[in-house]
Amino acid sequence: MRRIKLTVAYDGTNYHGWQFQPGSPTIEGELNKYLSELFKEEIVVIGASRTDSGVHALCNVAVFDTKARIPAEKVAYALNQRLPEDIRIRKSEDVATDFHPRKQATRKTYEYKILNEEFLNPVERLYAHFTYVPLDEKKMQEGAKYLIGKHDFASFCASGSTAETTVRTIYDIMVERNGNMISIKVTGNGFLYNMVRIIAGTLVEVGKGRFTPEQVKDVLEAKDRTKAGPTAPAKGLMLYEYSFEKDAK
Amino acid sequence: MRRIKLTVAYDGTNYHGWQFQPGSPTIEGELNKYLSELFKEEIVVIGASRTDSGVHALCNVAVFDTKARIPAEKVAYALNQRLPEDIRIRKSEDVATDFHPRKQATRKTYEYKILNEEFLNPVERLYAHFTYVPLDEKKMQEGAKYLIGKHDFASFCASGSTAETTVRTIYDIMVERNGNMISIKVTGNGFLYNMVRIIAGTLVEVGKGRFTPEQVKDVLEAKDRTKAGPTAPAKGLMLYEYSFEKDAK
Repeated sequence: MRRIKLTVAYDGTNYHGWQFQPGSPTIEGELNKYLSELFKEEIVVIGASRTDSGVHALCNVAVFDTKARIPAEKVAYALNQRLPEDIRIRKSEDVATDFHPRKQATRKTYEYKILNEEFLNPVERLYAHFTYVPLDEKKMQEGAKYLIGKHDFASFCASGSTAETTVRTIYDIMVERNGNMISIKVTGNGFLYNMVRIIAGTLVEVGKGRFTPEQVKDVLEAKDRTKAGPTAPAKGLMLYEYSFEKDAK
Repeated sequence: MRRIKLTVAYDGTNYHGWQFQPGSPTIEGELNKYLSELFKEEIVVIGASRTDSGVHALCNVAVFDTKARIPAEKVAYALNQRLPEDIRIRKSEDVATDFHPRKQATRKTYEYKILNEEFLNPVERLYAHFTYVPLDEKKMQEGAKYLIGKHDFASFCASGSTAETTVRTIYDIMVERNGNMISIKVTGNGFLYNMVRIIAGTLVEVGKGRFTPEQVKDVLEAKDRTKAGPTAPAKGLMLYEYSFEKDAK
């Protein structure tokens, strides 16, 4: 038996998220289906990030086991011939058979995009949250700095989460404007349910002037979801970078 | 009677182009339908650019006549409430009743986008042509300069065109790279059928090294469509800017 690791990019618009659900299109479901076709055996992938419905990814990770002897790097090519165009395998490679993508120390970056202009540009509508209220990205960056470090992010966790602890470490947050598009990049060792979307929703409130940058600190310290801003919509979110501290062999 | 001018943005992915066709979704068809609903009378717009199936626009123009007394600037808002999200009215304003968008001296800019990286990023797939062959954008810019000016663009006109003359003026062409995305912006007083897509397809050949930049001059002088590169796909094309020399009052 050998284990193959896939780096997967997708447009989440037409999927009910990563995780397999019978009867609904999901990224995991599509991968299992086309891998099983390709290898002519039942393949079930293990995914790294179970992204929500509508969330996009540049580099999610999945592994699967097979006895087939196909060179690992050919799998990406063969699979891309079969997959729908909104899912692409960027890379396929052999990894150690005990490599489990959710049991490794990781460093992940999510990007949240906000289109901030007078009208909702149709060609941006699927990949960014839209607001016509002018946002002050410098204040957003100022507010964001209070979130950097190891903190209890209970205020930024959707209710119903089953996480054992709400303590996480954010290594960095960068807020940048490029024309009408504001990008928030959050890098951390792991994220609570809806955490990046609640951070984005809170920073949008700061950008609008409804919260001061300093209030982000109060929100964090309150450890109370109701003190933070709204959960920003899924379509603005993209799993942007993913690295494992002990990476593929 | 009064005439109202609309500035229209759209994602062309799901439409059979601008021009009304019974039984097929078109931008003109959608505008006529929702304007007629809104004004409770039959409205038929006159469009400026009859963009092809799959082509996008930031700023196409349409005018229509009505006796209704609604303030012109409110039309955009009311129409956006009804239109699908992939069509947005950016602006609505009164114009002279003899303002005809295809009978004015105009200056138009089209943008053609090319995604040039190793894999087809799913979130870019609808709005850019993709090639993994590395493109040299400096050579593309060098080739493009031969097209600037008043020329017979017969080599860059799809067969079947009914234009009376193939002479057009290109004011400027800019080729720029931003990371993995190459943008070609072509500004002119009017374009032949598929002209920008054939220019883009030809410049891609230059970028790949299959044509030298100087060969663009030979292609132009040949006045023969078969000498130019292929017609680049519609999805990479966007009507980017539009101005009338004698603009709305």
